Amino acid sequence: AQYQAQESGKSESTLSIVVVGASGDLAKKKIFPALFALYYKGYFPETFTIYGFARTSMDDEEFRDLISMTLLCRIDEAENCGPKMDTFLDRCHYFSGQYDSVQSFTQLGAELDAQEAMLSSTANRIFYLSVPPNIFTNCAQGVSNGASSKTGWSRVIVEKPFGRDTESSRKLSNELMECLTEDQIYRIDHYLAKELVDNLTVLRFSNLIFEPLWNRNHIRNVQIIFSEDFGTEGRGGYFDNYGIIRDIMQNHLLQVLAILCMEPPVSLDAEHIRDEKVKVLQSMKPITMDDTVIGQYKKDRTGKLPSYLDDDTVPKGSLCPTFAAVALHIKNARWDGVPFLMKAGKALEKREAQIRVQFRHVPGNLYQSKLGTDLEGVTNELVIRIQPDEAMYLRLNNKVPGLGMRIDRTKLDLSYHQEYGEESMSAGAYERLILDVMQGDKRMFIRSDELDAAWELFTPLLHHLDEAKAQPELYPYGSRGPIGAHYLASKYGVRWGDAQE
Amino acid sequence: AQYQAQESGKSESTLSIVVVGASGDLAKKKIFPALFALYYKGYFPETFTIYGFARTSMDDEEFRDLISMTLLCRIDEAENCGPKMDTFLDRCHYFSGQYDSVQSFTQLGAELDAQEAMLSSTANRIFYLSVPPNIFTNCAQGVSNGASSKTGWSRVIVEKPFGRDTESSRKLSNELMECLTEDQIYRIDHYLAKELVDNLTVLRFSNLIFEPLWNRNHIRNVQIIFSEDFGTEGRGGYFDNYGIIRDIMQNHLLQVLAILCMEPPVSLDAEHIRDEKVKVLQSMKPITMDDTVIGQYKKDRTGKLPSYLDDDTVPKGSLCPTFAAVALHIKNARWDGVPFLMKAGKALEKREAQIRVQFRHVPGNLYQSKLGTDLEGVTNELVIRIQPDEAMYLRLNNKVPGLGMRIDRTKLDLSYHQEYGEESMSAGAYERLILDVMQGDKRMFIRSDELDAAWELFTPLLHHLDEAKAQPELYPYGSRGPIGAHYLASKYGVRWGDAQE
Amino acid sequence: AQYQAQESGKSESTLSIVVVGASGDLAKKKIFPALFALYYKGYFPETFTIYGFARTSMDDEEFRDLISMTLLCRIDEAENCGPKMDTFLDRCHYFSGQYDSVQSFTQLGAELDAQEAMLSSTANRIFYLSVPPNIFTNCAQGVSNGASSKTGWSRVIVEKPFGRDTESSRKLSNELMECLTEDQIYRIDHYLAKELVDNLTVLRFSNLIFEPLWNRNHIRNVQIIFSEDFGTEGRGGYFDNYGIIRDIMQNHLLQVLAILCMEPPVSLDAEHIRDEKVKVLQSMKPITMDDTVIGQYKKDRTGKLPSYLDDDTVPKGSLCPTFAAVALHIKNARWDGVPFLMKAGKALEKREAQIRVQFRHVPGNLYQSKLGTDLEGVTNELVIRIQPDEAMYLRLNNKVPGLGMRIDRTKLDLSYHQEYGEESMSAGAYERLILDVMQGDKRMFIRSDELDAAWELFTPLLHHLDEAKAQPELYPYGSRGPIGAHYLASKYGVRWGDAQE
Amino acid sequence: AQYQAQESGKSESTLSIVVVGASGDLAKKKIFPALFALYYKGYFPETFTIYGFARTSMDDEEFRDLISMTLLCRIDEAENCGPKMDTFLDRCHYFSGQYDSVQSFTQLGAELDAQEAMLSSTANRIFYLSVPPNIFTNCAQGVSNGASSKTGWSRVIVEKPFGRDTESSRKLSNELMECLTEDQIYRIDHYLAKELVDNLTVLRFSNLIFEPLWNRNHIRNVQIIFSEDFGTEGRGGYFDNYGIIRDIMQNHLLQVLAILCMEPPVSLDAEHIRDEKVKVLQSMKPITMDDTVIGQYKKDRTGKLPSYLDDDTVPKGSLCPTFAAVALHIKNARWDGVPFLMKAGKALEKREAQIRVQFRHVPGNLYQSKLGTDLEGVTNELVIRIQPDEAMYLRLNNKVPGLGMRIDRTKLDLSYHQEYGEESMSAGAYERLILDVMQGDKRMFIRSDELDAAWELFTPLLHHLDEAKAQPELYPYGSRGPIGAHYLASKYGVRWGDAQE
Repeated sequence: AQYQAQESGKSESTLSIVVVGASGDLAKKKIFPALFALYYKGYFPETFTIYGFARTSMDDEEFRDLISMTLLCRIDEAENCGPKMDTFLDRCHYFSGQYDSVQSFTQLGAELDAQEAMLSSTANRIFYLSVPPNIFTNCAQGVSNGASSKTGWSRVIVEKPFGRDTESSRKLSNELMECLTEDQIYRIDHYLAKELVDNLTVLRFSNLIFEPLWNRNHIRNVQIIFSEDFGTEGRGGYFDNYGIIRDIMQNHLLQVLAILCMEPPVSLDAEHIRDEKVKVLQSMKPITMDDTVIGQYKKDRTGKLPSYLDDDTVPKGSLCPTFAAVALHIKNARWDGVPFLMKAGKALEKREAQIRVQFRHVPGNLYQSKLGTDLEGVTNELVIRIQPDEAMYLRLNNKVPGLGMRIDRTKLDLSYHQEYGEESMSAGAYERLILDVMQGDKRMFIRSDELDAAWELFTPLLHHLDEAKAQPELYPYGSRGPIGAHYLASKYGVRWGDAQE
Repeated sequence: AQYQAQESGKSESTLSIVVVGASGDLAKKKIFPALFALYYKGYFPETFTIYGFARTSMDDEEFRDLISMTLLCRIDEAENCGPKMDTFLDRCHYFSGQYDSVQSFTQLGAELDAQEAMLSSTANRIFYLSVPPNIFTNCAQGVSNGASSKTGWSRVIVEKPFGRDTESSRKLSNELMECLTEDQIYRIDHYLAKELVDNLTVLRFSNLIFEPLWNRNHIRNVQIIFSEDFGTEGRGGYFDNYGIIRDIMQNHLLQVLAILCMEPPVSLDAEHIRDEKVKVLQSMKPITMDDTVIGQYKKDRTGKLPSYLDDDTVPKGSLCPTFAAVALHIKNARWDGVPFLMKAGKALEKREAQIRVQFRHVPGNLYQSKLGTDLEGVTNELVIRIQPDEAMYLRLNNKVPGLGMRIDRTKLDLSYHQEYGEESMSAGAYERLILDVMQGDKRMFIRSDELDAAWELFTPLLHHLDEAKAQPELYPYGSRGPIGAHYLASKYGVRWGDAQE
Repeated sequence: AQYQAQESGKSESTLSIVVVGASGDLAKKKIFPALFALYYKGYFPETFTIYGFARTSMDDEEFRDLISMTLLCRIDEAENCGPKMDTFLDRCHYFSGQYDSVQSFTQLGAELDAQEAMLSSTANRIFYLSVPPNIFTNCAQGVSNGASSKTGWSRVIVEKPFGRDTESSRKLSNELMECLTEDQIYRIDHYLAKELVDNLTVLRFSNLIFEPLWNRNHIRNVQIIFSEDFGTEGRGGYFDNYGIIRDIMQNHLLQVLAILCMEPPVSLDAEHIRDEKVKVLQSMKPITMDDTVIGQYKKDRTGKLPSYLDDDTVPKGSLCPTFAAVALHIKNARWDGVPFLMKAGKALEKREAQIRVQFRHVPGNLYQSKLGTDLEGVTNELVIRIQPDEAMYLRLNNKVPGLGMRIDRTKLDLSYHQEYGEESMSAGAYERLILDVMQGDKRMFIRSDELDAAWELFTPLLHHLDEAKAQPELYPYGSRGPIGAHYLASKYGVRWGDAQE
Repeated sequence: AQYQAQESGKSESTLSIVVVGASGDLAKKKIFPALFALYYKGYFPETFTIYGFARTSMDDEEFRDLISMTLLCRIDEAENCGPKMDTFLDRCHYFSGQYDSVQSFTQLGAELDAQEAMLSSTANRIFYLSVPPNIFTNCAQGVSNGASSKTGWSRVIVEKPFGRDTESSRKLSNELMECLTEDQIYRIDHYLAKELVDNLTVLRFSNLIFEPLWNRNHIRNVQIIFSEDFGTEGRGGYFDNYGIIRDIMQNHLLQVLAILCMEPPVSLDAEHIRDEKVKVLQSMKPITMDDTVIGQYKKDRTGKLPSYLDDDTVPKGSLCPTFAAVALHIKNARWDGVPFLMKAGKALEKREAQIRVQFRHVPGNLYQSKLGTDLEGVTNELVIRIQPDEAMYLRLNNKVPGLGMRIDRTKLDLSYHQEYGEESMSAGAYERLILDVMQGDKRMFIRSDELDAAWELFTPLLHHLDEAKAQPELYPYGSRGPIGAHYLASKYGVRWGDAQE
């Protein structure tokens, strides 16, 4: 990586990064810190220019003050952190304009041209649209017509939400495609940048032992579980408009599932990997009501922890699900008959995200009598804990040492923090993603056909929930979620693995 | 186990254990301590009698004094250890006689009859023949004709060596079979009682994930490695008569291999397991000189550590191998084409015994370019460390956390001491084996057809080495052994795994 | 084979064959013709002696006349058939005695000694006990005590029935073992000598393509079907004492199943093959009433074809099943969850015996919509027709040639008569089996532990049927048997394959 | 199919088919007969118009006379063939124009408009460009600018050659794409329309038994063999410009290989199938000189059959290969290490095209001693004979019926002509392909990325052969081709299967 960094340093082209919506929370908390971290680690080209673009009036100095507050030198004893931060801030500028004005963008383009001209004859530009989705199109038009580079490439980063359903998503995609090519658009799903999600392809395709097991003959079911231990807490306004399915499941969890289940790609090229992700999404059946459980959190038993409806920013009587569990089915040769269970919820007992691959029972099990009655609890399981406390372990049956023959289920495991140290885990998803945009690596970004395939799976369900005014099952704040989720698992003869540890 | 112990306690039959050769080292260091440990833990029936039988004259008290020295109460704060030891010693008697005299055994039988008559109408007897192999037959005849129980079963324990080759082993077996049934004979291979060897069947047959991988399509080679970090050190007399192949390989390592590679048995019954072990041994080809490397240790470079020939108890000019490496081949549908490498040696760098199952390269490896040039070092490997510090781990390729895509080989692992605590590991092999004899479980004992099949594999090689007066390759005391072992591995396109850690 | 024959010819030992029960039907129709055929084809040693032993008084000439009637020179234009038959008959003698008299056997032994002494110093003897089972033991004692060869081996052939259940079978085995060794006993199951049954091991183990498919992941169920198109027709006396389960299923069909499902043996040695057959039988669960359908034929609709009870030799009101269908389960790693269906019946529509291996549905079937609603009818199937008209075919889905995409199920097939000619099929089971006895090849004979394992599967069912006086379902003579058999198949989600062709 | 035909009949749109190059041989011999056959069988819509377009002056009647000569009523007793032919010819028109003149196409477009206006308000048009490749672009421009339908779709059929190498093929594709969309272009490879090639996907994906075997663990090599028993025979002018590799291998045989080896598609949709074909082509490595053998036929031994250079239309001293054999390698998880051998040649012993899938040896082969020394000849093989005399068979080892155990290799087979009758095989490739164009089914047509991937594999080799002026190995007319092909197979440890039958 150090080597790459030096390499990019030698490059003769300059890079400009424009953060559109520079005064927003995301920009301050995530984007600028990530940019600085990349700069600090040497991933930036020798010359670069950063622009904050927002509606507020501000001069460069005010802007630098603003962002410098979040630019922590993460590693306490980071060498030369101060001087590097100064240099970085020197290259930061601010531009005030209207997001829906091509004129503003043209003006910004002129400023960029001027800056870049001093640095190199070739200039590449990244536009990070940290703005609400309803102005994506305007911004894209602005970039395309007024501010794209004339001497290098221009790339545009957008973040979810990408529509509310198939129709609105397609509309947005089409609008973007009118002014940008697919090549230029980087749709972020920051879950793809999580260490253990990124590791999934390495795990599956660089190790011999998984491929022979990775199919319906050996895997009984797969679970993807996401839970937060806090509710909306006064910030339910945005959330209520989307709900947990659109917020977490249709994008993050489904992406994880796609990578976990896709066929081996021709190569590690982003297009080959995304081809396979699209394929596996297209092999799934749209989710039905039968395969869905929705929930909403209520006060806890003590009455101290609030219900979702207690959140003032949430509309009275909202039916918005804060919890959902669904079963998905992949109708191909590898996965036919294997249920894929996903659940996601807010205000639950724990904060965690994990993947659980549960293997089948041993056929003709010689040890059946020694394994007791809970046969569920004795199948092999591969668990990948995405967060917090990244880890991976394989549950195995083992003889308990000592006289006699007693068997229990133990773990072969790998704790990331123990193995690799805290340090290594500190590179955030945003750093990784912005670096990928700089390097043109689209592996972790969502292609429009992927996005479309993902919406196709959830849209009928989402429409049906809306039309039917489906009542969510209430569950107490801090609990394990609605009981219904267990019945859904039970329908497929399995148990949620997170409840067994 | 506690439950079982109580159960046996209620049993109406009494048990007598006769240690023939009671004054020997093994008896003092291993057998009596194991008997006491079993008693202490409650595995003995309510009534029992122990007899030491040897040529020396001694009375019961002298004998009790002698053995009490090695009866440590292993667990420091063991409850009631003192009182229990007293009770135990009370039940110990001594009998002085000639091993080759039926009359002696008849007399002993009479004493036993008398003791047992006071305790129960049914008496079972175990005879532990802790004597040199040349008097096995005499003792067996003695037991059979003079001392076997008239009211219960009589079982006889023997320990290696069981002959020097096919012919002498068959002769011994035939002689034993003339006075005892196969059912009565318990041939100990204490390696089978090692925790991680005993666990092999559990691992393979109670976990789904191994069986699909456990074959020639996925396993590239298997290694069974035994090394000691000390030489004969003045006790080479016995050893020189056998050599490392007969001492370690033909029995201990081959037994481990048989369990690792056998087909699934019909059930966990000892006979079913031993049927499968015989089958896999019969599917192997006798070892050839081409597939063998032998070595003998010389002084180390400093000259401080002695050579094998420096041992005064070793005949001058002895060609006896203190190291051997061989390749075995199993000609069946599961293993055809997979080399099985074994090596065993004295006076090496480390003391350890381990099993290494090396998996194949990933076909069409997507990550080849990222894995560097040492492709050997990046295949998956299952390592089972039998001793010391029992552990099991699976080597996997993993993305190194952080920016960029760097892959290294990490471990999913299970350390027994960490997982189960020191305590659990303390039950010795002898305890386990004697308990099995008490319970009639023959799983860990060698059946005569197994023994015969094992000798058939090694006898041509052993004869050839003798006839050819094959010169061992010299290696320094404390080294990794002869270089030749690497060339043997290389012939099969693999590397010894222990050299890579 | 021709070579072998010459080889045996050179052998210096002579062979004597004694057919005990020489005046019976089986002897006349099968045994003597088979002996002559083997002689004619050159499989006999240069010198040999044949003795018929029965109670009737007869001299050698009368005996020769009797058997010569069935010694057809099978091949019309057989060269030298006449002269060879004369030579053969010359070597045939008759001995009249009592089966339960050791004295008779001793006398016969003396005659044999005399005959053989003129021919060679080494004489081997085969005793074919073509007598009712209640005198097996007497004859075996006779052979053992009075007539076994003093200069070579003595072998004894017996034919079913071998008892009526576990207990009676063990009793018989024990009695035989008291006077003969396992090595000397050849228990015939002539089904094992059928060409396509004998071919099963070749098919499975010399072709790569079967082993990967031969397991629970790919095989949905296996059917073994036996049907006769005639009833007892006045010979029901013997049959009624046994019933179809004992007569056909517990021996012939179960033997076929064992060979079809056993694990690969270590080698083709008879003991290795029989070891595996025993193993697979031991892995089966005893058959339950739930998994059983029994039937008895009644008059057909026209009233012309008789019911079983119309047979005068059948006891009034007999509940003896003339039809049975059962489901078996093999509880091992290969077959767990696969139902094995067997059915056997008399007075059915057709005469045939076949094996049908039905494969699973294609997972994620791309062609589902094109395959119509009868998904049962479109799975792959391997059919082996044992009799009549030996054949083997594999049912495949194929595109119907022409425009459009229409799929039907066609066959890849092999008709033995077309491929190999009528001639090659003419060697009868008895020839093959007697030749095997001569050559000491026990592959096609039932070992006592096999026999015992087979009875263990059926004995509880048979006892239960007896005790419960279970009523068989009536089915018309000439029909497809009781409807109940379909419900049994349906319980396992499959269909009988023979009804679909 | 009948049903589909009626369906199309009901459709309200009319169809026009323009054969550009109507006076050429292909048009007369293949295209018009195929059009008539489709009409006769009811696959045309109720109304349709056919136009011949060529440079020659001709009126409609002359044109109808010309084509009617080849419109045989294929089925002798075809009902109503005469009247139907009259109706068909009535709908045929002729248009004389210049292929490179947009004006000509505009004029034709106007005529079509007029004709169609009388028939329906919606008109779809197919343009069959039966012209040399150097005017493909002109014609496409003509169609696009002057003659495409304003009320329905317009589709354009082109036939090989599609360039001579990657560069020229890309140029052609780019030119076509400037005036047509990928959707409108139908690149014919008539090999894809062969019955047994079309059946490959059915075979692989509607039968359970192939998928488990269809990989490197079980398949040793695959051969695709094409041979003609005649030379260029005075028509070598066109051929010499391309050679056998471009003429047969890079398109027909490689297409067959792609279908045989691709991964299962998401669905049977043309795009999904073509996605998989592209993937497998991209997983292959470009062919090297080491993996290539080229040949050219010389006079036969009698001197009666001419050499390639004897053909007057062939340039003196031409090095053009009339035979080639190559080895291909697919670097993915399924096929890594399996050689794919292709050979194609003119003037060989036989005329045939076949696919041979050779399976591996049986591991730990129990029957090795019985199978003799030619182990190559005893592996299983799936043979698919594409032409002539379509058939499919599976080679198996089987016990030869009779006494003793002799094994030979027999066949499970399916002869199409026997099974389905001659009739069913009569639908020609052109009928099938034109029908697919009418129905918009692109499954059997080559997409531009496929074409490009195919050229990428062969272009380096083709360039190298040209630059090196590589000498072909001479082989006699009517022989089995150059010996070198055997050495190529031998390099991979296999044998050509066609030489063994």
